[in-house]
Amino acid sequence: MMNSPCPLDHIRIVLSHTSHPGNIGAAARAMKTMGLSALYLVDPKIFPDAEAQALASHATDILQQAHVCTELHQALDRTALVAAVTARPRDLSHKVFDARQGAQELVRAAQLQPVALLFGRESSGLTAAEVSKCQIIIHIPANPDYPSLNLASAVQVMAYELRMALLEQAMPATAAEACPLASFNELESLYAHLEELMITSGFLNPQQPKRLMPRIRRLFARARLEKEEVQILRGILAALGKRW
Amino acid sequence: MMNSPCPLDHIRIVLSHTSHPGNIGAAARAMKTMGLSALYLVDPKIFPDAEAQALASHATDILQQAHVCTELHQALDRTALVAAVTARPRDLSHKVFDARQGAQELVRAAQLQPVALLFGRESSGLTAAEVSKCQIIIHIPANPDYPSLNLASAVQVMAYELRMALLEQAMPATAAEACPLASFNELESLYAHLEELMITSGFLNPQQPKRLMPRIRRLFARARLEKEEVQILRGILAALGKRW
Repeated sequence: MMNSPCPLDHIRIVLSHTSHPGNIGAAARAMKTMGLSALYLVDPKIFPDAEAQALASHATDILQQAHVCTELHQALDRTALVAAVTARPRDLSHKVFDARQGAQELVRAAQLQPVALLFGRESSGLTAAEVSKCQIIIHIPANPDYPSLNLASAVQVMAYELRMALLEQAMPATAAEACPLASFNELESLYAHLEELMITSGFLNPQQPKRLMPRIRRLFARARLEKEEVQILRGILAALGKRW
Repeated sequence: MMNSPCPLDHIRIVLSHTSHPGNIGAAARAMKTMGLSALYLVDPKIFPDAEAQALASHATDILQQAHVCTELHQALDRTALVAAVTARPRDLSHKVFDARQGAQELVRAAQLQPVALLFGRESSGLTAAEVSKCQIIIHIPANPDYPSLNLASAVQVMAYELRMALLEQAMPATAAEACPLASFNELESLYAHLEELMITSGFLNPQQPKRLMPRIRRLFARARLEKEEVQILRGILAALGKRW
C-alpha cells in the first residue's frame, strides 16, 4: 500500500485581512506546534515583516512558504470543505460545529482532499460575503461576556483540536464519505448557473434578491455536495434552461 | 439549595517565573475568553508592566486582581489538586493526563475545592522541584519535532479544555437545528415535482432511469431540508417549468 500523506498536510489555515503581522507570526508558531504547515494570507496589511518573523520563533519556515493571495477565492482554490471560524455563531444560515466536532469533520475530509479553515480580521471577524463561501461554521466555545480570542490563540485552539482529531481518528472514512466532494470552484459555478436561471425565469429579481441565494448556498453547504452530484444538478439546470 | 459557584472560579492559573510581561497579559486575555479569572504569578521578572496591560486587551481586570507571590507554595495554598502542564511528559513519576482528560479531572475537583494549573518558564518549563509539588501532569499533545507552545497559547488550550469540560455536562441544541424540518409528504412532493420536470425536459429517460432519483434523494436527505427550503426549491422548479 502506498504511504498516504498526513491529513494535516491537506489543511490550509487561511487568515483574511490580518492587520498585525505579529499575529501572523504567532499563528505560524501555533500551527507548527500542532503539525500544520499550509498558511494562506489573504491581503495581509503588512507582510513579510520583522515582528512576524520574531513571533514565529522556530516556525519561520511556515512564513517563508506562506501563500499570499489578493482574493479569498484564490486561497480556497480546489478545496473540498471550507470552515469559517467564529467566536460567536451569529450567522445561523450554516451548520454550526463546535471546535472539536468541526476539527473532526475537517480531518475526515482532509484524508482525501484539501480543506481550509478560515479566520477573519482581528477587529471584526469574517464578513457575510466571506462566510457565504464556507460550507460549515466552527464556533469556539467562549465566555459570552468576552469571547474575543486573540487571532493566534484561535488558531492554536483549532490546530490543537485538529491534532487531537487526528490522534483519535483511527477510523477510516466510511464508504459514503469516500466519494470525492465537489471543489470550491465547482460549487461556485453551480451557484452561478442556478442564479442565472433563477433570474432569467423571473423567480429571482436582482433588484430585490432578498435572502434567496444565501439560503440556497446554505442548503447545499449542509449537503456537502459530491462531484457527481454537482454534475447531476448542472445537467438538470442545463436541461431545464434550454427554453429560457 | 444554595446557588453553587462556577467551578471555573475555583481554578487558579499559576505562572511560575515568567520572563516576558507580554505573555502574562496574553495569558490573562486567554483566561478571560474562557471564563477563568484567578491568576497567580510566582516571582515574575517584570510585573506590572505596560506590555502586559496592552496584550491583556479587555482582561486588565484579571491583571489587577492577580496574586503576585514570591514562592510557589503561596500560590498553591489550600488547593486540593495541582496539575503541572508540560509540552512533553518527561517525568514519569506522576500520573500523566492529556489536556482533555486533565481538564476533566480539574473541573471535577473544582466543584468542591480550589485547584491549580501550573505553567513553567518560557525557556525551560517547570523544574523538578516544581513538578514535585503537583499531583498530576497534564501533557498537551504536540508536534514532536516542535512542541514549543507559546506560554499564553498553552494557557489558551488548557482554558479552552476547562470550559469544554464544564460545558460537556449539558449541551443544548443549536439554534440552527431549531428551524422546522420539512415533512415526509413535503419531501415526496418535491421529489415528484423534480422528477416530472426532469422527464419533460429530457434529462431523465423513464425507460433508463439509472440511479438518478435515488442519488438526488440521498443528496437532499443529507441536507435535512427545512420547510422553507422546500418552498424555495418548489418555487424555482415552478418558475423553470413554466415553459415546459
